[in-house]
Amino acid sequence: MTLHLSNPQIKRRGLMLVLSSPSGAGKTTLTRLLREREASLSLSISVTTRERRPSEVEGSHYYFISETEFRDLQTRGDLLESAFVHGNHYGSPRKPIEKALSEGKDILFDIDYQGARQIASKAPDDVVTVFILPPSITELRTRLERRAEDSGEVIDRRLAAAKQEISRWEDYNYVLVNDDLDKTFAQLRALLAAERLKRERQVGLSSFVAGLLGDLP
Amino acid sequence: MTLHLSNPQIKRRGLMLVLSSPSGAGKTTLTRLLREREASLSLSISVTTRERRPSEVEGSHYYFISETEFRDLQTRGDLLESAFVHGNHYGSPRKPIEKALSEGKDILFDIDYQGARQIASKAPDDVVTVFILPPSITELRTRLERRAEDSGEVIDRRLAAAKQEISRWEDYNYVLVNDDLDKTFAQLRALLAAERLKRERQVGLSSFVAGLLGDLP
Repeated sequence: MTLHLSNPQIKRRGLMLVLSSPSGAGKTTLTRLLREREASLSLSISVTTRERRPSEVEGSHYYFISETEFRDLQTRGDLLESAFVHGNHYGSPRKPIEKALSEGKDILFDIDYQGARQIASKAPDDVVTVFILPPSITELRTRLERRAEDSGEVIDRRLAAAKQEISRWEDYNYVLVNDDLDKTFAQLRALLAAERLKRERQVGLSSFVAGLLGDLP
Repeated sequence: MTLHLSNPQIKRRGLMLVLSSPSGAGKTTLTRLLREREASLSLSISVTTRERRPSEVEGSHYYFISETEFRDLQTRGDLLESAFVHGNHYGSPRKPIEKALSEGKDILFDIDYQGARQIASKAPDDVVTVFILPPSITELRTRLERRAEDSGEVIDRRLAAAKQEISRWEDYNYVLVNDDLDKTFAQLRALLAAERLKRERQVGLSSFVAGLLGDLP
């Protein structure tokens, strides 16, 4: 798929692409490929109350904010989703996302089913949710074991988490079985192309069609 | 897009792809390309009460039936859509379509907005509707004039019909602007691939996921 598949003459509204999967199903690789190959897609940058690590860059990895700032965002309804993990708050700020969408840019979210559900309920028309399944548990376990950094205990914990995550597959619009990375990536790009072509997202169609009708006898 | 983009290990339900456009927007060529390149897609074969022409083959171009048979189909609710044109009845019989869908085959409909609306209201979950727009009226007129067989009067009639057809663009799920045949064809294939990957259509997912969950500790 080397062609640019949008209708560039028609102004469109961006979309939020939510990818969820159990650890080891290939989501990280697919996210990287999407960011490399899909120019109009960028990763959502979360706010967090946790301390910045030396390797992290403000505004690139996270927006680092105080507890008070986080509470303010939450109170004003300015978070599309939020989570409390190991004593720290995380959230997706609504305003920069809304700005990107209105400029026809797409935002990628790499989040779990709880975040996916929150976003889908807050902005149903702008969200496309995709769940990535492993082809088999044997394959999932192999992929987890191949990661040298994970101990046996960590792998067992990830498999337990996988069970919980996989059991939410029915919350998603699309379900892909990642038995071949190239195929799954092509599927992701196809569904992204398709979702961009939905009538409601091509907000410039009204004026385009009005122009056509005006030119007819 | 040379890859086969479905999940072949998951049983899926077919879909009905409805293509509408004004005459001259490229729908006939796109329909031919889809039939040539999409193995699981076949054209819906209508029933009609009009007389068979010598060049036509029963069951290939149409099912030729009597007025009584047509009325019976209609009374039993066995037509997904029907139209009365120049004194003859036409319709899309429900049973062969339902059989194809349940076997995971897709059916292509080359029909106008009235047929599209009837099908979409009778089988909303199984239908994907696509409207093809010309890039401009100048281009539409050029394409109509290039067809040697059409007289000036026929062209004027087609432009008047185009106005009516184009004004129904908001009834459709997807709207494509056919300014480049290769691009528009790739868009059609992308949306077909995407629609096949929708969770609800992959009817085999339940048992596939049950298998995965059963293999987890």
